[in-house]
Amino acid sequence: MTITGKQLIQGEWTSGKGATYQTVNPATGESLEPQMSYADSSQIDAVVEAAAKAAPAYAATTLKQRGEFLNACADEIMALGDELLERLKAETGYPQARVEGERGRTCNQLKMFANTIQSGEFLDARIDLAMPDRQPMPRADIRFYKQSIGPVVVFGASNFPMAFSTAGGDTASALAAGCPVIVKGHNSHAGAAELVAQAIQKAADKCQLPKGTFSYVTGPGKEVGAALVKADQVKAVGFTGSHSGGMALYKLASERPNPIPVFAEMGSINPIVVLPEALKASAQSIAEGFVGSLTLGVGQFCVNPGLVLGIEGDDLDTFIDATAKALGDVNAGVMLNQGIAEAYQSGRQTLSAQPGVTSVGSGQPVKDGETGFCGQAELFTVSAADFIKNPELQAENFGPSSLVIKCKNAEELNAAVRHLGGQLTGTLQATESELQNYAELLNLLQEKVGRMVVNNFPTGVEVCDAMMHGGPSPASTDSRFTSVGTKAIDRFVRPICFQNYPHDLLPAALQNGNPWGISRWINGERTNSAVKN
Amino acid sequence: MTITGKQLIQGEWTSGKGATYQTVNPATGESLEPQMSYADSSQIDAVVEAAAKAAPAYAATTLKQRGEFLNACADEIMALGDELLERLKAETGYPQARVEGERGRTCNQLKMFANTIQSGEFLDARIDLAMPDRQPMPRADIRFYKQSIGPVVVFGASNFPMAFSTAGGDTASALAAGCPVIVKGHNSHAGAAELVAQAIQKAADKCQLPKGTFSYVTGPGKEVGAALVKADQVKAVGFTGSHSGGMALYKLASERPNPIPVFAEMGSINPIVVLPEALKASAQSIAEGFVGSLTLGVGQFCVNPGLVLGIEGDDLDTFIDATAKALGDVNAGVMLNQGIAEAYQSGRQTLSAQPGVTSVGSGQPVKDGETGFCGQAELFTVSAADFIKNPELQAENFGPSSLVIKCKNAEELNAAVRHLGGQLTGTLQATESELQNYAELLNLLQEKVGRMVVNNFPTGVEVCDAMMHGGPSPASTDSRFTSVGTKAIDRFVRPICFQNYPHDLLPAALQNGNPWGISRWINGERTNSAVKN
Repeated sequence: MTITGKQLIQGEWTSGKGATYQTVNPATGESLEPQMSYADSSQIDAVVEAAAKAAPAYAATTLKQRGEFLNACADEIMALGDELLERLKAETGYPQARVEGERGRTCNQLKMFANTIQSGEFLDARIDLAMPDRQPMPRADIRFYKQSIGPVVVFGASNFPMAFSTAGGDTASALAAGCPVIVKGHNSHAGAAELVAQAIQKAADKCQLPKGTFSYVTGPGKEVGAALVKADQVKAVGFTGSHSGGMALYKLASERPNPIPVFAEMGSINPIVVLPEALKASAQSIAEGFVGSLTLGVGQFCVNPGLVLGIEGDDLDTFIDATAKALGDVNAGVMLNQGIAEAYQSGRQTLSAQPGVTSVGSGQPVKDGETGFCGQAELFTVSAADFIKNPELQAENFGPSSLVIKCKNAEELNAAVRHLGGQLTGTLQATESELQNYAELLNLLQEKVGRMVVNNFPTGVEVCDAMMHGGPSPASTDSRFTSVGTKAIDRFVRPICFQNYPHDLLPAALQNGNPWGISRWINGERTNSAVKN
Repeated sequence: MTITGKQLIQGEWTSGKGATYQTVNPATGESLEPQMSYADSSQIDAVVEAAAKAAPAYAATTLKQRGEFLNACADEIMALGDELLERLKAETGYPQARVEGERGRTCNQLKMFANTIQSGEFLDARIDLAMPDRQPMPRADIRFYKQSIGPVVVFGASNFPMAFSTAGGDTASALAAGCPVIVKGHNSHAGAAELVAQAIQKAADKCQLPKGTFSYVTGPGKEVGAALVKADQVKAVGFTGSHSGGMALYKLASERPNPIPVFAEMGSINPIVVLPEALKASAQSIAEGFVGSLTLGVGQFCVNPGLVLGIEGDDLDTFIDATAKALGDVNAGVMLNQGIAEAYQSGRQTLSAQPGVTSVGSGQPVKDGETGFCGQAELFTVSAADFIKNPELQAENFGPSSLVIKCKNAEELNAAVRHLGGQLTGTLQATESELQNYAELLNLLQEKVGRMVVNNFPTGVEVCDAMMHGGPSPASTDSRFTSVGTKAIDRFVRPICFQNYPHDLLPAALQNGNPWGISRWINGERTNSAVKN
């Protein structure tokens, strides 16, 4: 494959009519070939029209056909081989293990959705049979399932160039749901994104899917991104990134004459509560685990632990000392792009200037003469009283810095947790007896988060059936949905019911014979059986 | 019980500190005793605080306890006896059969939710067991279910003084989900609403639920309603009413620093497509069925059929003549209040003044000297070409008027359907062979609606497991949820997962032994069994 810098519109690769640009290697600061082009507004019109046109035919594919397509996407991505891995490394500064791992996760996600949709669980099929003799009124036959909502726009994420970008979790779940996808590639890794888009289009062609099932465009968020979100034909948006970016899209979408859902996973500081007995028993290993989680991927994860809450005392001091010490060994790592590295640096300065905030340790500094965009890890502390007073201290600083909140006692710890905004995750490092004794703390934390973690760390999100990756605002725009795991598909379907409908015209999922063999809810009972006539 | 005009705040009946008013009998125009009071802003603060305080304890109730509470609500409402029915009739102008029917539906809904939650389906329990030996990384034990989201505000609906008001579908489904409810009563029937609120509070006391589990306030929408939607402690809103009212709440909620979902079922004109062969076979009976649906409850239903689409020709003319004739026998009925009657009258005038629109029949006129607020049924026609040009013709006119769109041929019929906004329902009157032959029409209609109806009429919404009452924008603010039927509960829960969590602290729904005996998704299989260790 060759990177062309083009856009995939109506199933054809076309030069963008907008501005041109080049991606940059963040490890060296050098521009990468070739010249890339942005789509202009006429191309955005064409791309949404193509997706809308493809929607009914793609929605009508069987689960088996969609599964074959998703598997073919995984195969074609693997077939890109080292070319993809090399470009990913060049555009992100990630090491070999990370890009291999992320490719593995991406392909596994595609295969997971290919497999999970065969169960038909997401269709939520329900049948209430007619009761012609019911008094005072007969009941009509009514059947319910969830159908695809139509074209979905997916924004590539800076930090997951594969697993949350072109063929990432949003794309895979939307395609699994039967929705055409328009990817708005992230400018930082547009070369790798294009390679993946080529692979998906190859898979779509092999599977003879309608042109417009998958499209790929690039451009500035404020123009191309906004135009996609405002397009009448677009029915939902998937986004992973900053709070300001997510809320800007949410605002655009909710101001449409016909508002649409924006599933934005945004900033989160992912509090870790460290309780005294647990620290007494294992401050050192908790500190090491914490530093590993904090500095993984140079802290560029949405579940990065940016906040630690503990109760003042020798055990907390021991933990802080051990953390500071472990941090001292961590090299300043290459961050994803210049903007992210600069924002992180400025975030550290802002944080250290807040009342009561003290820096208590840091990683290795950025080397003199370093041409890459690097970030130095840092640990701060502040009292709970100062934390509660200052909303600035809850702002995410994307990168490997964290803030320890020192609470006077359990009561003040509860007050600090009560004060937190919504989070993707909440973690407890605690002994069995502490978990029993801190019942109110657990309840308070549970109200704030999408995932409760005990004696693990929040990074390393498992992609599985039971994962919830989302949380109350401001962690995400819609706490009722996850962007990771098989439940992510629920975002892209909507219910419809059929009353007194001719049997042969019903969707297969709702026909008497249960041709797909799925679990259904019939007259108030869950069953895999056919409808008995 | 005595109607006091008070507010139910923190479990106590308290005089409102706002303005006073009286409800009005729309059949006579007379004011009803006693004086009612509005809540002021300090009382709104108190009511949301009480709901937030009650939330954790109420969320922690078992499904059995919640079921007992919902059943007790139904019993206490029935115990209000004729006093409730008389007040309902006086405040709405509805006849005895309607208020009895609506009481029955309301109590049945409460019992339905009491029953359906015992299945645990809405909890969507999922368990992925730990894989300590997995390579390259072990998998932690992860368990997922849906928990209550917290306090819900429910707006009483003008047209369903019971079934979509104080103890209606929104309240019942939110309470079933484990969320405290704050009802903002509709001013038109505040006396009946208070009686029902008294019944619920009595049930809550009997079940020893925390004060603030249920609250009831009244006041102007722009003050009291807006304050409730903006309150930080409130986590979701249920509303049934006009498009402008629903969108105003949606806007307030989405502009919050932490946006919350608003489930607004808004205006819909519920198109009925009448196809030629069906009309040839049975124009007369279709016309009679249509007039029955159109004028039921003086047209004051959200699924009232305000639009008919047909193909020009003798059969359509026969249908129009038969409809006009049947309409001629329909008396002008009492509408819910003065504002609704006046808006309906003005809507008819606006409609008749649109280019190409002709009045082709009407019901009995409002009698001279009539002191009640009555509405006269009316039927209009317009060409598809004029319809497509004029967005005004898609505005809902709440009441018994409808507009027939005359299409030149099947292609123009498709164009007219393509042009429709989102709807709660779409209905086809068609023969078997027409349903086969009009495949594109069916696809187009399916994209626009939440419920497809064949050879039935849209009114008489069945309250069941398979009902979808909602639809694409502008019919509702969130097409992924229904406000009628057991799936309504999904609006008021959000997922959370527990990673490496101590077994004894897990919610009962996720414990190994499956103490509630519910259906769960364990390691990719649906089962009612306990987890095998």
